[in-house]
Amino acid sequence: MTARDALPDLKALWLLGQGREQDVVISTRMRLARNLSDFHFKSRFRTGEAQRLEVALREALAEAAPDLRYLRMHELQPTQRDVLFERLLVSAEHVADASPRGVAFSEDGTTSVLVNEEDHLRLQVFAAGLELPRLGTAIDALDDRLAGRVSYAFLERYGYLTSCPTNTGTGLRVSVMLHLPALSFRREAGTRAAEPGIVRVHKAAQRLGLTVRGTHGESSRAEGDFYQISNQVTLGRPPEQAVSDLQEVLNQVVQYERHSRQILMEDDRIRLEDVVWRGWAILRHARRITSREALAHLSALRLGVWLKLIDAVTVPTLQELMVRMRPGHLQHEAGRELAPAERDALRATLIRERLGAK
Amino acid sequence: MTARDALPDLKALWLLGQGREQDVVISTRMRLARNLSDFHFKSRFRTGEAQRLEVALREALAEAAPDLRYLRMHELQPTQRDVLFERLLVSAEHVADASPRGVAFSEDGTTSVLVNEEDHLRLQVFAAGLELPRLGTAIDALDDRLAGRVSYAFLERYGYLTSCPTNTGTGLRVSVMLHLPALSFRREAGTRAAEPGIVRVHKAAQRLGLTVRGTHGESSRAEGDFYQISNQVTLGRPPEQAVSDLQEVLNQVVQYERHSRQILMEDDRIRLEDVVWRGWAILRHARRITSREALAHLSALRLGVWLKLIDAVTVPTLQELMVRMRPGHLQHEAGRELAPAERDALRATLIRERLGAK
Repeated sequence: MTARDALPDLKALWLLGQGREQDVVISTRMRLARNLSDFHFKSRFRTGEAQRLEVALREALAEAAPDLRYLRMHELQPTQRDVLFERLLVSAEHVADASPRGVAFSEDGTTSVLVNEEDHLRLQVFAAGLELPRLGTAIDALDDRLAGRVSYAFLERYGYLTSCPTNTGTGLRVSVMLHLPALSFRREAGTRAAEPGIVRVHKAAQRLGLTVRGTHGESSRAEGDFYQISNQVTLGRPPEQAVSDLQEVLNQVVQYERHSRQILMEDDRIRLEDVVWRGWAILRHARRITSREALAHLSALRLGVWLKLIDAVTVPTLQELMVRMRPGHLQHEAGRELAPAERDALRATLIRERLGAK
Repeated sequence: MTARDALPDLKALWLLGQGREQDVVISTRMRLARNLSDFHFKSRFRTGEAQRLEVALREALAEAAPDLRYLRMHELQPTQRDVLFERLLVSAEHVADASPRGVAFSEDGTTSVLVNEEDHLRLQVFAAGLELPRLGTAIDALDDRLAGRVSYAFLERYGYLTSCPTNTGTGLRVSVMLHLPALSFRREAGTRAAEPGIVRVHKAAQRLGLTVRGTHGESSRAEGDFYQISNQVTLGRPPEQAVSDLQEVLNQVVQYERHSRQILMEDDRIRLEDVVWRGWAILRHARRITSREALAHLSALRLGVWLKLIDAVTVPTLQELMVRMRPGHLQHEAGRELAPAERDALRATLIRERLGAK
């Protein structure tokens, strides 16, 4: 298997599929942090212990989850690691780390297991749209399969022990990626001055101990209007409660975003159409484009498709472009590292061709 | 004749025609300032004198230049006056003035005579491209026709007397509108840092007593990269010398702009194509657009056509849009005054339709 073949086919990626509430909810992710009782925590590793752990877990995974493909991160090219990161299979820390480490993943990318990240094991499951119960079942099953092969560090009083105390307890973190363009829309000077709805979302989430993050910190408008809501604390609360709190907030945010979209359609339709059609026009004709600008236009088009303002493109195509236009994917496709100006030109060409422009 | 019919047909406008060096030179204008010896200067008018002057000159024009159509400015609607201004037939001052005043003009807009502007008479002739000798002949002929009907204020020592001393002498002002996108191009950070060529044009023109104006003052980059070069002082220099100085500078600027375009094509082709195609894309798809933004894109397309980067549009169409998208024309076309937001939406629609987009 060549290095290039080592990566799964983009066409199979779960992110291109359908899910619940997908007009507003991009994706759901669940993650469990687990450590083995017969190894030290990562920060306390003795010489050679990282390597022994990686071998032990690789073998355990081969038995417990033979359907997952295993790659040793430290044997991959930098662009290959970036591709895995851009498909959410591994974390930024797992890309940057230098120690022996691995990742096991399913072909469609819905499951991944990180070996020797911050914790010995990080189990992850993904779905397009809002899929809390289904993912809960999936990650429990994966957890059970592994628990039959290894001995988890667990104390009755605290639950699962983790490298960082904020993960101790269930070790569960649920993150939901939302597309909130209408809630992010600032009214223009001279029209009704209201704070953008996203500010109210931040406040409501905080009251429930949830985190809302844009790409550039909590207060800024997120790049492309994509926001991640996740539960913040796992210790001392039953996982069912954490998930149901999150579900309740998400239901409200989804309704709120939909309502805001309808108001925009009534009050600001020309402005909305302008943003959507400019996005379409620029993506089909630009000769160079940064990923930040491209994401803004793809975001506008995503909104435009759901509001039936444009039907020249589909949501899966937009999702695919959001992944393929990222630096790791671009460089992987080019087969070499690219300077920023080269990436901007290649990104523009890729998008033009995918959207069927000349 | 209804008020609407009073205005000439846009299709006949000289600005849509061909001229010399038109890749760089948009248009040439010559103007003569003249006053009558048997009336006071405008600032010294006695009661009723403005009205008597207007009647006298209207009658003189009907005899001397029966091919010109005469309109009394003070009888027109505001949007009609704006349309005349946007076709360069009258000055901004002539639009804003409240006194009895008029304009005589040819159907194709190549000739106009302002009655009771700053001076009693302002004769103007226009051509697309660079046409100094031809326009010199044309304006002399017009001047001679009028001189046979009225008595000009003239002193052997000073020449023609004018309201403002800077016009005294020949009363001639020559203005040439240039499109200098390559000379205005600033190199991006990280590439060869050179001052834009337009700075050198300013300096060279100043040495010869010429004025270079962008839309927002001398030092700024002009809106749409359109610059006007004109002769500054008429007193004490023979008109032939003034015109030949201007011709020499213009020849140099034209060569310099062409050379800069070739360099851009070699060094910065992707950036150039990006600007041109984005302009095309946005003009064909925007749902609202300011005149400033539209002008920038029309300017980019004009450059793109000459550089053969795009052939989906022609220069006359671009010239037509630059006139039709202006507020007076938009409101004249709509048949009513429009709020700025309405103008931006109508402008976008007009441009989309003219460029054949859906």
